[in-house]
Amino acid sequence: MTGREEVLRRVRAALGPARGTAVPVPRGYRRRLGPEEAADRADVIALFTERVADHRASVRHVHADELATAVAAALWGREAKRVIVPADLPFGWLAELDGVHALADTPATDAAVLESCDGAVTGCAVAVARTGTVVLDGGRAQGRRALSLVPDHHLCVVHADQIVGTVAEALPRLDPARPLTWISGPAATLDLGGTRAPGPHGPRTLEILVVED
Amino acid sequence: MTGREEVLRRVRAALGPARGTAVPVPRGYRRRLGPEEAADRADVIALFTERVADHRASVRHVHADELATAVAAALWGREAKRVIVPADLPFGWLAELDGVHALADTPATDAAVLESCDGAVTGCAVAVARTGTVVLDGGRAQGRRALSLVPDHHLCVVHADQIVGTVAEALPRLDPARPLTWISGPAATLDLGGTRAPGPHGPRTLEILVVED
Repeated sequence: MTGREEVLRRVRAALGPARGTAVPVPRGYRRRLGPEEAADRADVIALFTERVADHRASVRHVHADELATAVAAALWGREAKRVIVPADLPFGWLAELDGVHALADTPATDAAVLESCDGAVTGCAVAVARTGTVVLDGGRAQGRRALSLVPDHHLCVVHADQIVGTVAEALPRLDPARPLTWISGPAATLDLGGTRAPGPHGPRTLEILVVED
Repeated sequence: MTGREEVLRRVRAALGPARGTAVPVPRGYRRRLGPEEAADRADVIALFTERVADHRASVRHVHADELATAVAAALWGREAKRVIVPADLPFGWLAELDGVHALADTPATDAAVLESCDGAVTGCAVAVARTGTVVLDGGRAQGRRALSLVPDHHLCVVHADQIVGTVAEALPRLDPARPLTWISGPAATLDLGGTRAPGPHGPRTLEILVVED
């Protein structure tokens, strides 16, 4: 008996006769928000707003007709001069910009130029109320990952119907083969005591506009 | 026998014993371009270009990277000061505009304002090579029908993969329940002799940009 066979024999003996049989794994997760968290759609959206604010991100609710004005106001408020946007961002989102130059990320912008932008404007794929998270998957109006990672300010537009209650509800809306970016508040890190502190990389400011029709 | 019965009796007698049986209708239409018209994709695109030019519309081929510059150049070339665009037009198409104000059609622009615009920029749903036609169905980047009907200049962006050979190939790509606008050249009418003449309504200038990746 070689050393390898001896080791395998001991492992098998230790595993015992139950080896190879299916181990029951409890799967009774709660996949949706309970009624104490959210009784209806308005509660889901309210919970998202509350959790986003817990992350020290700002969140505003706007009507679809006011979106262009709200985007412009958010950028003016930060005295942004130049922002980067995905090439397929709907033009209407930026229709009221005045004095802010929007740079379309096509072809892919050089990293130094990206760094010099005052912010980025993107949409998202889905948002999770319980965790106050927006998820980007590189789909429409979202662009490359670098857009939400490099500039210091990220303005993210979330349509109310993109907000789901839980991570379990968000996953079926996402393609696991795409590059997913899960954003819960501005860039942050945990210190040794588990306290959330501003991160050394990524946007220090996250602003979310929730669009309700 | 009443008069009505007498009339129906005569109609039935005239129809004879074949009445009610299915009449064979020849359905052997040629649904695709024959090889003498287009042997491959490049020929389909070339045919589209040729037929669009026959309608006295201008057509340019651009690489995806050059689209924003081409859109801006087309508008500068007409000294356009203000253009109307659908709110969901990809921002990247207008990223190089300088000195031209793009107005997003949201909420729906007043007719007088629309009339005062120098032009409209839209995408299309599908384009037909044999007839040199672009078809708008109000879907993404296309907006309301008024945009392609009121301003005097229509700049339409066609992606090469939106061009099909024949009308029969175009129809399955369109939803018959949507408002379809079929555009074959600038606004035109036929005089009594069947000669095509500029129309009294609609854009007098149609420019098409074919985007090839």
